[in-house]
Amino acid sequence: MKARVTVTLKNGVLDPQGKAIEGALKSLGVEGIANVRQGKVFDIEVDTPDKAQAEASLKAACEKLLANTVIENYRVEIA
Amino acid sequence: MKARVTVTLKNGVLDPQGKAIEGALKSLGVEGIANVRQGKVFDIEVDTPDKAQAEASLKAACEKLLANTVIENYRVEIA
Repeated sequence: MKARVTVTLKNGVLDPQGKAIEGALKSLGVEGIANVRQGKVFDIEVDTPDKAQAEASLKAACEKLLANTVIENYRVEIA
Repeated sequence: MKARVTVTLKNGVLDPQGKAIEGALKSLGVEGIANVRQGKVFDIEVDTPDKAQAEASLKAACEKLLANTVIENYRVEIA
C-alpha cells in the first residue's frame, strides 16, 4: 500500500529557507512570486493490506520521526 | 493564487536519505514500513489572477531553481 506524508511548517513559524528561495527566485527574474514556504514529502510503501493498520503505522512514524509536532503539521494520504 | 509544487526523485535514482529514514523507523519499532523516498514540497503564493501566467511562473521557478531536472521530477498544482 502506497502512502504520501506531507510535513509543513505551522502558520506563524518563521521559514528562513522559504524566504531565501523567494529572494533567489526574484534575483533569477521569476516574476509574481509572493511567498514561499518549504516542507517535506515522504513517499512510503506500507507492508499491510489493512488501511487502518497502515494509517496507524504512518501516524506513529510521523509522531516519532518525520515531523517535529511543536512546529510542524503533517498529513497522511493513503493511495 | 496559491500553488503547491512537489519535487520528487526520479525512479531509479538512489535515495540514501530515504533509506536512512527507513532504517531509523525500523529501529524505532514502527512496523510495516517497506520503502521510503523523500522529496520536497513548496507552498507558493503567486501574485497574479491569471492561471496560465501563474503556471508559467511556477514552471520557470522549477526549471531554474526548485528542481534538478536531471534527477528530479516536479509537479505543479494550482489551488
